[in-house]
Amino acid sequence: MGEQRTPGHGAGVEADATAAAQAAGEAVAAVDVGGTRVKAALVDRQGRELVSTTTATPADLGAAAALVEAVTATVHELKRAAAEQGLTVTVGACGVVVPGLVDDTHGVALYSANLGWRDLDLVTPLETALGVPVGLGHDVRAGLLAEARWGGAQGSDNVMFVPLGTGIAGALMVDGQVLQAGGYAGELGHVVVEPGGPVCGCGARGCLEAVASASAIERAYAARLTSEEAPADRVTAERIAALVARGDPVATAVWEHAVSALGRAVVMAVSLTGVELVLLGGGLAQSGDLLLDPLRREVAGALTFQRPPTLARAALGDRAGCLGAACLAWDLT
Amino acid sequence: MGEQRTPGHGAGVEADATAAAQAAGEAVAAVDVGGTRVKAALVDRQGRELVSTTTATPADLGAAAALVEAVTATVHELKRAAAEQGLTVTVGACGVVVPGLVDDTHGVALYSANLGWRDLDLVTPLETALGVPVGLGHDVRAGLLAEARWGGAQGSDNVMFVPLGTGIAGALMVDGQVLQAGGYAGELGHVVVEPGGPVCGCGARGCLEAVASASAIERAYAARLTSEEAPADRVTAERIAALVARGDPVATAVWEHAVSALGRAVVMAVSLTGVELVLLGGGLAQSGDLLLDPLRREVAGALTFQRPPTLARAALGDRAGCLGAACLAWDLT
Repeated sequence: MGEQRTPGHGAGVEADATAAAQAAGEAVAAVDVGGTRVKAALVDRQGRELVSTTTATPADLGAAAALVEAVTATVHELKRAAAEQGLTVTVGACGVVVPGLVDDTHGVALYSANLGWRDLDLVTPLETALGVPVGLGHDVRAGLLAEARWGGAQGSDNVMFVPLGTGIAGALMVDGQVLQAGGYAGELGHVVVEPGGPVCGCGARGCLEAVASASAIERAYAARLTSEEAPADRVTAERIAALVARGDPVATAVWEHAVSALGRAVVMAVSLTGVELVLLGGGLAQSGDLLLDPLRREVAGALTFQRPPTLARAALGDRAGCLGAACLAWDLT
Repeated sequence: MGEQRTPGHGAGVEADATAAAQAAGEAVAAVDVGGTRVKAALVDRQGRELVSTTTATPADLGAAAALVEAVTATVHELKRAAAEQGLTVTVGACGVVVPGLVDDTHGVALYSANLGWRDLDLVTPLETALGVPVGLGHDVRAGLLAEARWGGAQGSDNVMFVPLGTGIAGALMVDGQVLQAGGYAGELGHVVVEPGGPVCGCGARGCLEAVASASAIERAYAARLTSEEAPADRVTAERIAALVARGDPVATAVWEHAVSALGRAVVMAVSLTGVELVLLGGGLAQSGDLLLDPLRREVAGALTFQRPPTLARAALGDRAGCLGAACLAWDLT
């Protein structure tokens, strides 16, 4: 099942002693089922992780029973770890977030290409197994909820959250509500920014994801090198960012092309939805101002009458999904 | 003031005898203040116009007092007309919709280039003048509300309403809520569909409005004619549509270019917001399948994993704004 703790892996079970001391004894269990890892935590009402686990995602999660078993085992492990830390915690609800296409309203995991499921109705079996109310949601939309409640979007009602990684995801909050549209809202990564451009995994050409994701930047960089220049190993987006910081002309050209495309997508989203804060997350956002400064110039230069958005890094990093699951759970108590 | 009825002008006061007979005596006053005309009606709870007026928009509406006076005079005229028809109607609330930038939530008309105002706080003075609760909203967003309640979007929670006229406006409903974002949501007309394309009134290049509005189509058609071919009069978009229907090659090329741009904008909005119904209104939509058939092909051909939207004509025509004002008013009772 891969549900063992991985204490030697940098993650494993962690406990925040201060938070633990302050814990009123009430918490929710939060489980973020990702493509490669399951991140989970017991989270208090202030968004503090009292205890957390990170485990490898089990294979064969295609059936509801397997996913229910994985989540149940994770929650038991969290409780066991809390007891081991001497924490007396009552778990009042559980939140689970998953990737892919999710109907948050009805709690159905509709489709995940990576994890291999279709139409998993998870809430009732999870509630039966865990004995507490369960909320199911989408990892990125829930991440936006967490950023709004505890992270970089506090006080904002109109926000776009854009994790930039191997792919490009998106979630939108307008008028204080995270847009769902049956699970179809927020696909910024598949807005066409370069008609006739590179083929995207979705089958279209010129999608933002095919032009400005970490993997697109890596492909574009590799394609610009001659066979003599090309290193034996893949040059990661992180490495390309470092080259940009040093003024490497090839890396800079590739980077600027990607930032320009991202800018066009942001401007389009601002025009259409009126978001006033754009929070960038994921691996690429770790490059900080190297990404944000040219992106701000690109966006400012393209807007006319629209309200200029603030562009900033997301605050919760790779905990956003797990903390978003905690938001879903707290909303049930 | 231009508040006189204009019975000789094709519009004037109309009464629906059947609706009048069925009226339970309760109604709201609905006023749609447009750039050239003020359309108003007493509307019952089923969305029927018991009596309506159309008048020229008064000049000099830049101050709140002038707009309050115009709306008040319009409502009095509606009541007088109802009495003349022998209708005993109690007006329980009033809704007013205006173009431009509107903060629906706080009832402030923020900006209208056409009508020349800034930051008009209208609700309190209108309530004082009329003695009933008053709702203020944006003409297109209110029009979408009316389409959802009484028109072409009944039963749909995720809808984009796109009036195609001299300009291109837009309003979005997601998860059953019309997006506001402080008045900034819905600017489909200013999504860039043709980078480096024609200059738009907003100052940007290649906005949808600069490529696919009625006026853009007229300009593109005129630009394709040689000086010998060019008629003395402006060729209207309506006339160009008629030429397309007859297979005229120049008109067809212009039309296809505009439809293609509109298709790209629709696909982008579908990806980002998950709308499943796109309602086309305004003058261009009167061309019906001449617009809808190629647009449907364009959209279907560009979607990959997204949920394919239904494309249809809006149902309420140029009454959408006025009926939207009625929705705002009924929501206050």
